[in-house]
Amino acid sequence: MPIPRTAKTFFPPVMEARRWLEGVEFPPDRPLINVSQAAPVDPPPEPLRRVIAEAALNTPEAHLYGPVLGLPELRAEVASQWCDAYGGEIKTENVAITSGCNQAFCAMITTLCAEGDEVLLPTPWYFNHKMWLDIVGVDAIALPPGPGLLPDVAEAAARITDRTRAISLVTPNNPGGVEYPADLVRAFYELAREKGIALIIDETYRDFDARSGAPHDLFTDPDWGDTLIQLYSFSKAFRLTGHRVGAMVAAPGRLAEAEKFLDTVTICPNQLGQIAALWGMQNLSQWLAGERAEILDRRAAITDNMPRLEAKGWTLLGCGAYFAYMEHPFALASDEMAKKLVQEAGVLLLPGTMFTREGDPAGKRQMRVAFANVDRAGIGRLFDRLERLDWPLAPAAANA
Amino acid sequence: MPIPRTAKTFFPPVMEARRWLEGVEFPPDRPLINVSQAAPVDPPPEPLRRVIAEAALNTPEAHLYGPVLGLPELRAEVASQWCDAYGGEIKTENVAITSGCNQAFCAMITTLCAEGDEVLLPTPWYFNHKMWLDIVGVDAIALPPGPGLLPDVAEAAARITDRTRAISLVTPNNPGGVEYPADLVRAFYELAREKGIALIIDETYRDFDARSGAPHDLFTDPDWGDTLIQLYSFSKAFRLTGHRVGAMVAAPGRLAEAEKFLDTVTICPNQLGQIAALWGMQNLSQWLAGERAEILDRRAAITDNMPRLEAKGWTLLGCGAYFAYMEHPFALASDEMAKKLVQEAGVLLLPGTMFTREGDPAGKRQMRVAFANVDRAGIGRLFDRLERLDWPLAPAAANA
Repeated sequence: MPIPRTAKTFFPPVMEARRWLEGVEFPPDRPLINVSQAAPVDPPPEPLRRVIAEAALNTPEAHLYGPVLGLPELRAEVASQWCDAYGGEIKTENVAITSGCNQAFCAMITTLCAEGDEVLLPTPWYFNHKMWLDIVGVDAIALPPGPGLLPDVAEAAARITDRTRAISLVTPNNPGGVEYPADLVRAFYELAREKGIALIIDETYRDFDARSGAPHDLFTDPDWGDTLIQLYSFSKAFRLTGHRVGAMVAAPGRLAEAEKFLDTVTICPNQLGQIAALWGMQNLSQWLAGERAEILDRRAAITDNMPRLEAKGWTLLGCGAYFAYMEHPFALASDEMAKKLVQEAGVLLLPGTMFTREGDPAGKRQMRVAFANVDRAGIGRLFDRLERLDWPLAPAAANA
Repeated sequence: MPIPRTAKTFFPPVMEARRWLEGVEFPPDRPLINVSQAAPVDPPPEPLRRVIAEAALNTPEAHLYGPVLGLPELRAEVASQWCDAYGGEIKTENVAITSGCNQAFCAMITTLCAEGDEVLLPTPWYFNHKMWLDIVGVDAIALPPGPGLLPDVAEAAARITDRTRAISLVTPNNPGGVEYPADLVRAFYELAREKGIALIIDETYRDFDARSGAPHDLFTDPDWGDTLIQLYSFSKAFRLTGHRVGAMVAAPGRLAEAEKFLDTVTICPNQLGQIAALWGMQNLSQWLAGERAEILDRRAAITDNMPRLEAKGWTLLGCGAYFAYMEHPFALASDEMAKKLVQEAGVLLLPGTMFTREGDPAGKRQMRVAFANVDRAGIGRLFDRLERLDWPLAPAAANA
């Protein structure tokens, strides 16, 4: 009997990791440090909460179905701000709103691929992208990282076949934290265009990019819509994770295909979340700048503390967005280590095995720290705990 | 080149129908009567709106990610009320919350089926179900209706092959309006159990069933989880369409598989919608009883008015839930007729062609009236307009 679609993929890593907490006691003087999920733990600022409350009370349409592709005003606002941020021409009809950015990826893959097609994903990859490709019968072709966790264009070119439909990048990267240089992104774009495939760029973490200015120049190509598909999330910028609002920017014809998927799976994005995202875009740019500065300080706290771990054989492979991606020195596979960390150090993080294909040796040595929820002092305490681990070292690390 | 998944299905019917309105003027003395979509046009009652507003302001978790399978309190409430309503044992772990009932169907099909599998769908079918089967490469096997738009169990049995994974019913039916008798539902259940396949029952419109008591007894079978998957929507009961909240009731192991799909596609249902649904379930049963009475009165208005159309050669095939399903007497395919109705009568409805496979002659003669948004007086005006149509009759109707 053929294997049903969901049986072809793994269980959700974040939920699995949460189960490691079951039955574990965390003493008051050593509370859990949870760096497993890339999500704000505070609600949105009070003025935004008031906007949502006001809409719930007095905007009747906030409770009714809306257009499948999202609120026209929000689509227009994204288009307008994107033109300013990226240059080039991005119109309202290039933008659609989704029930979170994961859904944008799912919708786009479904417009591009048939059973047995292939999509190139740099490793370490975002697990939900891999899961969706499994579910819809698309082969995720792993593109191993070069120095600095950056994928290599020539390596990608060598993996393109007549079944390849897209290259999918995440920048700033989840889980790696790396910000892809603009010229690297451009080189991938040129490759995709030349091969007649799509380039998907998930920019969920764009608001926390350490660089100023546009992270790439792809929208300045008048024909960007032939190749480029950009994904975005309002969850991180405005702390709206619980509202499920994301976006995608693409050619109108592709959005019309995506509309079939979105209509069938959710009918429309929820309205209050869209109203919140619109108000946030129009009113919270100053506030968001403060959020970004705070995240960048936490990122700096990682690099400031890192020498302590480097002295113990650790390596920081990437750091940015919400994430530090590290190689540990122990004679333990990362998935075993992650469970042990909960019990012995009160730290919950996700092992590299969750971001690589099964059996990839890199994943066994690596782990992701989602640091966005932990302030500078908390990051110091996290490093204290990691520094004190006295587990047996792997031979390579022992030699180093 | 293989055809991408979305290209294998059609464009969303409701959005297509909305486009028929573009550029059409509706004079003040003959405003549009829109009976195209099954959705309340009023917001939820004020106390429920206040609950949403209060949560937005003062419940921090309302803005954060929640569990993939939904708020535990809402899952428990559904389980508890379902035990009372259906008898049998339904536990919290049998219930999951989804971003609308469409998503529940998509998730469940994806746990059941692989490429090339088959699912039996009675016709006329709910178009989003057909669309999802197309998108995931599952063959929708049409089960033509017998008298009273009821599907026939023997006809279903004859269509089951070694690729059949489920029979999917909607009761009360969309688009047909028919309430399936409990013994018919039981017979389908027995068939599915015997064949080792799933029986999916979408009960989105259960709160508007004209019958009192449980609409079927399937949950009283202690082993119901081996066969039965039930889907539900909070949208209609509490006017929460814009919030996207649905539910599914199934075996815990199946929900664990569905969790992969839901995590990947949306991460979690939005929180405010779930808070609203929970409060509605706990506090609005009296109010909902009034809503039901109003819908049943509108349904009665359809049957009260129907003789006027019957005199002109029309037939009422089914009536219930939010829908009347009719056969018209004209020498015009229903899809052509629907566009003409917008222009010549100011009526927007969906043609039967949207609820049947391409080329099915029944669809050409039929149409769906989603009457829930139109009060008794409005239904009278709708029938006035339909009664006045003097288009050429089909030969069969002319002979009748």
